[in-house]
Amino acid sequence: MNIIDGKKIADEIKSEIAKEVKEMLDNNTKAPHLAAIIVGDDPASQTYVANKEKACHEVGFISSVYKYPSTITEKELLDTIDFINNDDDIDGLIVQQPLPKHISVDKVIEKINYTKDVDGFHPINFGKMASNLPAFIAATPLGILELLKRAGVETEGKHCVVLGRSHIVGSPMSILLARNTNPGNCTVSLCHSKTKNLKEISAQADILIVAMGKLEYVKADMVKEGAVVIDVGLHRVPSNETKSGFRLKGDVKYDEVSKKCSYITPVPGGVGPMTITALLMNTLKAAKKEI
Amino acid sequence: MNIIDGKKIADEIKSEIAKEVKEMLDNNTKAPHLAAIIVGDDPASQTYVANKEKACHEVGFISSVYKYPSTITEKELLDTIDFINNDDDIDGLIVQQPLPKHISVDKVIEKINYTKDVDGFHPINFGKMASNLPAFIAATPLGILELLKRAGVETEGKHCVVLGRSHIVGSPMSILLARNTNPGNCTVSLCHSKTKNLKEISAQADILIVAMGKLEYVKADMVKEGAVVIDVGLHRVPSNETKSGFRLKGDVKYDEVSKKCSYITPVPGGVGPMTITALLMNTLKAAKKEI
Repeated sequence: MNIIDGKKIADEIKSEIAKEVKEMLDNNTKAPHLAAIIVGDDPASQTYVANKEKACHEVGFISSVYKYPSTITEKELLDTIDFINNDDDIDGLIVQQPLPKHISVDKVIEKINYTKDVDGFHPINFGKMASNLPAFIAATPLGILELLKRAGVETEGKHCVVLGRSHIVGSPMSILLARNTNPGNCTVSLCHSKTKNLKEISAQADILIVAMGKLEYVKADMVKEGAVVIDVGLHRVPSNETKSGFRLKGDVKYDEVSKKCSYITPVPGGVGPMTITALLMNTLKAAKKEI
Repeated sequence: MNIIDGKKIADEIKSEIAKEVKEMLDNNTKAPHLAAIIVGDDPASQTYVANKEKACHEVGFISSVYKYPSTITEKELLDTIDFINNDDDIDGLIVQQPLPKHISVDKVIEKINYTKDVDGFHPINFGKMASNLPAFIAATPLGILELLKRAGVETEGKHCVVLGRSHIVGSPMSILLARNTNPGNCTVSLCHSKTKNLKEISAQADILIVAMGKLEYVKADMVKEGAVVIDVGLHRVPSNETKSGFRLKGDVKYDEVSKKCSYITPVPGGVGPMTITALLMNTLKAAKKEI
């Protein structure tokens, strides 16, 4: 059994990006610039954005954060996005979610110029991704593709089962792995809350991608001997054994499942560290006008 | 075994559309207007466009056809699209494929204003469709959804296997039937040329959608007893028994498969008649500014 070390792979990619930024600066090209908009004072959002800023600085990107109170009107927010769309200094733009209820998330996402949409949430990026055209791919699926590639997992002709059909993980993941690309060319089965024989289908998977948001739902009897298991779940569980008073766990019951796997991502240290790194990859692409 | 009569369902839908157009005219609203661009003199394209014009006239739509020689430059074609995009009289625009090799199909599709993209080929429509937002859905998948709905096929919790991952049929079909909608909420497996155990997966299907482009590929041993089978294939096979000298056949070996099915679409008279009808449905939506 091989543990796919997301932390190590993320660090490798960040080193590669930092090297490329250094070369850009040496060639008198400006560093990639990521802008984030944050509305309101949700503590988790503050932490996420702060982590993104930190990651930007680690690789030499410029980062800017636009903070607004939750009283901002939809029009004001859309105008701000328009302003950033037209600012040539800024390569990538993300709008941290959740947004206050009086603001339409769909309108906000569609307002972002898709060539700066480094979150890959704009419908046009989703559509281009599905057609195998140059596009920003959402951070978590992009991170998983990188993990599979760098861990040396062969995907062609494999049966990949995706558990969970969310718009930012399960659904794009199912499309990406069915494309005629590498990684890709899997037979893909997409399962969700309405799936009847989940255990039976899951146990057929050569590659099992679990993005259900259910604590330790996937047990050993749902996994085939030799499967590759990617665990996207992230749950805080109270614990007496840690200083913080909690531990992080996934959607997969790691102790029993890992024994059957050829490859598995742990929680923490698997998919998680790749998410921000994938955002950096997208921002670099945006700066290089690759999309 | 129930034969899903695509011709009959298509006629029903066309009557409903014709009735709605009459009401629009009675209310002094102009009739929906579909424009088609055709480049070069491919005989099949001429026939397709002529059939689309005929269908428009049947339901009371206005139709116009812009014909260009295959020497038209890409820029001239893109300018024409822009002109039609800005013509408020025209609700829907399709550009008949294939196009000459010196013209980028992707550029042409992306040039069409997505609110007039009644073929549903623009990436933004694909992305919105995947997110369950109002969008134009490509004609063949939309036609199949209508067939399933009007034939009364229940889809929720069913295992749907899609054979073929083309961008205009298999791929969108797999996304549509996995969405949290009705029809939808299927567990969906998408198979293609790289799938290894096609027969085994196909035989698990409660609903089998065959869009492979391979004459009579699906035999009885690939189909579960009681399955719903939708055959998207269309092949001309030489025949001494018909005046025309050929017969139409599908991707499914109908005689042996139909005996096992709960529902099946024949070829001809199944999915085929729904395709142009779905285009009319989209054009009506465009005229009503529903997208």
